[in-house]
Amino acid sequence: MFQDFDEVSDPTLGPERVAKLRQWLAANGLDGFIVPRADEHQGEYVPPGSERLKWLTGFSGSAGVAIVLASRAVIFVDGRYTLQVRDQTDPETFAVESLIDNPPPKWIEANLGKGVRLAYDPWLHTIGDVKALSKAAEKSGADLVPLTANPVDGLWTDRPSPPLAPVEIHPIAFAGELARDKLSRLAAAIAKDGATHAVLTDPSSIAWAFNIRGADVPHTPLALGFAVLAAEGPHLLFMDKRKLPMKTEAYLTQLADLRPPSALESEITALAKNGARIALDPVLAADRLRTLVAEHGGVVVSAADPARIPRATKNSAEIAGARAAHRRDGAAVAKLLCWLDGQAPDTLDEIALVTKLEQMRRATGEETQMPLREVSFATIAGAGPNGAIMHYRVSTATNRPLKDGELFLLDSGGQYQDGTTDITRTVPIGKPTDEMRTRYTLVLKGMFQISMLRFPAGVRGSELDAVARLALWKAGLDYAHGTGHGVGSYLSVHEGPQRLAKTGTEKLLAGMILSNEPGYYKPGSYGIRLENLILVTPTEELPDGDIAMHGFETLTLAPFDKRLLRTSLLTRDELHWLDEYHARVMREIGPMVGGEVLAWLEKATAPLPRDDKD
Amino acid sequence: MFQDFDEVSDPTLGPERVAKLRQWLAANGLDGFIVPRADEHQGEYVPPGSERLKWLTGFSGSAGVAIVLASRAVIFVDGRYTLQVRDQTDPETFAVESLIDNPPPKWIEANLGKGVRLAYDPWLHTIGDVKALSKAAEKSGADLVPLTANPVDGLWTDRPSPPLAPVEIHPIAFAGELARDKLSRLAAAIAKDGATHAVLTDPSSIAWAFNIRGADVPHTPLALGFAVLAAEGPHLLFMDKRKLPMKTEAYLTQLADLRPPSALESEITALAKNGARIALDPVLAADRLRTLVAEHGGVVVSAADPARIPRATKNSAEIAGARAAHRRDGAAVAKLLCWLDGQAPDTLDEIALVTKLEQMRRATGEETQMPLREVSFATIAGAGPNGAIMHYRVSTATNRPLKDGELFLLDSGGQYQDGTTDITRTVPIGKPTDEMRTRYTLVLKGMFQISMLRFPAGVRGSELDAVARLALWKAGLDYAHGTGHGVGSYLSVHEGPQRLAKTGTEKLLAGMILSNEPGYYKPGSYGIRLENLILVTPTEELPDGDIAMHGFETLTLAPFDKRLLRTSLLTRDELHWLDEYHARVMREIGPMVGGEVLAWLEKATAPLPRDDKD
Repeated sequence: MFQDFDEVSDPTLGPERVAKLRQWLAANGLDGFIVPRADEHQGEYVPPGSERLKWLTGFSGSAGVAIVLASRAVIFVDGRYTLQVRDQTDPETFAVESLIDNPPPKWIEANLGKGVRLAYDPWLHTIGDVKALSKAAEKSGADLVPLTANPVDGLWTDRPSPPLAPVEIHPIAFAGELARDKLSRLAAAIAKDGATHAVLTDPSSIAWAFNIRGADVPHTPLALGFAVLAAEGPHLLFMDKRKLPMKTEAYLTQLADLRPPSALESEITALAKNGARIALDPVLAADRLRTLVAEHGGVVVSAADPARIPRATKNSAEIAGARAAHRRDGAAVAKLLCWLDGQAPDTLDEIALVTKLEQMRRATGEETQMPLREVSFATIAGAGPNGAIMHYRVSTATNRPLKDGELFLLDSGGQYQDGTTDITRTVPIGKPTDEMRTRYTLVLKGMFQISMLRFPAGVRGSELDAVARLALWKAGLDYAHGTGHGVGSYLSVHEGPQRLAKTGTEKLLAGMILSNEPGYYKPGSYGIRLENLILVTPTEELPDGDIAMHGFETLTLAPFDKRLLRTSLLTRDELHWLDEYHARVMREIGPMVGGEVLAWLEKATAPLPRDDKD
Repeated sequence: MFQDFDEVSDPTLGPERVAKLRQWLAANGLDGFIVPRADEHQGEYVPPGSERLKWLTGFSGSAGVAIVLASRAVIFVDGRYTLQVRDQTDPETFAVESLIDNPPPKWIEANLGKGVRLAYDPWLHTIGDVKALSKAAEKSGADLVPLTANPVDGLWTDRPSPPLAPVEIHPIAFAGELARDKLSRLAAAIAKDGATHAVLTDPSSIAWAFNIRGADVPHTPLALGFAVLAAEGPHLLFMDKRKLPMKTEAYLTQLADLRPPSALESEITALAKNGARIALDPVLAADRLRTLVAEHGGVVVSAADPARIPRATKNSAEIAGARAAHRRDGAAVAKLLCWLDGQAPDTLDEIALVTKLEQMRRATGEETQMPLREVSFATIAGAGPNGAIMHYRVSTATNRPLKDGELFLLDSGGQYQDGTTDITRTVPIGKPTDEMRTRYTLVLKGMFQISMLRFPAGVRGSELDAVARLALWKAGLDYAHGTGHGVGSYLSVHEGPQRLAKTGTEKLLAGMILSNEPGYYKPGSYGIRLENLILVTPTEELPDGDIAMHGFETLTLAPFDKRLLRTSLLTRDELHWLDEYHARVMREIGPMVGGEVLAWLEKATAPLPRDDKD
């Protein structure tokens, strides 16, 4: 299994560790220390040796920060984790604050006083983070003190070593462009930004630029490391040679000078001393990089990671790969849904479903000679009220049976060498209520409206997010998350900069892949989410149109459950879209399944009766 | 007439005036000078004595900047004025640049060199403007030099004096809240911003806060002046006493200490010397205010004008006034449309229509004892291709007959003591083409979709703008302006901060008035724009809803031309909305018109045939 169901956390260890940290702080003339969940790469997943927040506090969530002062400590988490944090941390030791409403800078401004020396590890905070923290500290009269070594690492005696998963070459058949050519494009972009060099700190960018994949963190095929790309001259790649098979090393040596990660500081220092103009992305790069450049005579150029837009706009090979991956993944999901349809209510639980789904994906991958490499995130399998928890992860403690009359929400994805998938379907266990059906249909309408959109090239995701909500809003309903996130190509399933959300300030460009996933959540009762991945594509020119339009090609292929549909709530266009989509699912997935699954799929994708008055 | 049709501009005077300015610059050791169209108040209209850009260049548009250097000069205008600027300025003297694509900061960065001394009048540029200009000058190595006196004023021998239109008290019946109470609210807001004082530089805020109206600029009832509001203690109002009738002066004396405008600098200086913390809005306040505070030991608090949200969220008296003003204005528009309907094609021209419409508004105002005080902007009356010019203003030079087979776009508004209106209707002269009807209907669909929206309180205008475009986008069409602007209450017809546009980052709150005006423009052929004003209102709670929703109440009351409608393109909801709206127009406007207008209105607002297959 690529996923486990344990709750590995012990709230009893926190107090002692915090006490030790406090001793260290006192001995070093410091009043406090900030411990973020992030590592140097600011990614969604971190390797075990970077789980400093979890080691110190017990909290295992994917986002959070702790601040430990001499006489008190506080942990900041967002709405997803307010319950979990109380189970996982010692309440005597840690007060809990909202990462959203009262984030560390705001808290620091209100809670620290004159002369308080608050330390931080400048490798774990971005340039933007440190700017906000410094401003807050200044307002409160406190001093923000960067440390050269992280005290948690000193106290953590059995801290795991950095991961050394083998790095493989991502074949040109899937990458679609040689790394050499990508690196030339990036070098030109760096020069255009007015820089001589750019530091890539995001392993997704390194994986994309060098056409390599690794396995250093869960669910995302990343090889942790850094790169310093040069506008002119050789690039530097900082990666532990122990994780480079001979073939990979020979390949990479042609593209860059290889250096151990420990050499990053000295190389940046040397470049800075030569007066280099080094581009750093303020929302990604560790503040330590900024100070290294500045302290040694270099010039910091504030510029977005040059790989992010080229990486986000998939080329034709990546698009072909995505389509193939989605056919394969859709077949696996269809098998699962067919199988689930044959089981009686109250006989299964969430873990059984997650396990079965992974089996289906593995089997389908084997059959098609494109094996499942990983699940793209821990499957969200929410039965009944668990479905209303937006980022639910099933554990042995929370595992719930699929009960008659409840809804079951299944959000999952696969990592294949040709693409990353992410799909959500919601199905009824037994007979759904009218309310469930109405709300399911309103969510589906939102998804269809996004699917059917045409828009001028360059429109931003923030302008389109509401389109998925209009039908829910009309009924006095909404959902508290964005409509869609960007998705990588055999990379991270959450990969920007493109988003369909209030915060989606990036222009939508042809080749970008996003999720289209409106939802509705009734706390304590049920959750509905429906998710397809969509690809931004130019649409055919209309004879009467003035301007070129873009639209979305739907990549995900799996039926929507008609038992939850109220066709009377759909417009003619929406009905038509659903029938066409189902016909396409049958056409593309049908040939990949056989026997009872094919029969099930035929029924599941049959056109809707048009005079159905529901 | 509140509007004239002259083109008052002479491109031949520019060269000599620029030569004199250059002499002055050389004599004062300066290399250049920036001349913006704005005055100290940054409003849409400026009094004649502040038309420095027009005096120097000949250009009479409502937005623009000139930069005069020793050997060249450039004028920056936006897309609306690219043709006009070439007619109004001397091409040998002024190069033309895009205010949007290559605005002054960008141009300065690329065109000035080391040591160039570029002067500016710090009363005419906001804090934000000067920040951007300084950054650009710094990058190019140039120096940005603030002047204590504007050299244009010295050269402009017959410069008009500041306007002295009498200031009147805005009655409590229309204002709905005593100025005393508004000022208390503002004082509390200033304290909350951490300031001791706030400078109001926007005459709309002063008019709102003190419940006064003036006539210092065209079309907007503003009394130019400044106010310094105090969190504690007396407020200061800087206004020329010559424009205060005895009653107004007695009234204002109860609310604030009156000072002449010339005393502003010394009063700010005195406050700063006492260590005052003075709030300035960086997008409104002149940079001179910032330096005055900083140079004399005060603290500048960067905070939005405290009046802008209270002013934008209309109270019940203002809302009642708006409804009444729109009934009156709708009756005037209905009379005009009825009259126009009776005229043969090719017998009228744009100026005749503008004149007739003002007559209708004046007459209706007289009849209802609420006279038209002004038109809220120069009526846009665009026949045929003139309709495709988004901010067209008819002059004797451009005046065009209303020709058979063309469209006629009429965008106008009235200033009444109880409210400000703004309405656009597009009508066919003779028989419209199928293309015109299709596109008219697509524009109408966009307007209806906005009208029918429900959305959670706090949604931003930027999230809703696209809703008005979806139908056009589907047909490969769009319009190059925002969907809606904020509107004041017997104040400015363009009054933020609320907007329905990509740039509308302000939350929509109950009581805000906006325009809802999608359009379509076919350059060289015709323009379509349809505009209603709408009011943000809480909607009734739905029995099955989770959250409180807001929606829009339509204020504007005038029929849409059915000859341009393709009912087959409307959804059932849209047809229903139109019929209900027309029934309401008949109900509310009918009693205000008689005879043939009533008969015309009855026909114009009759329900649409439902089985019409077009």
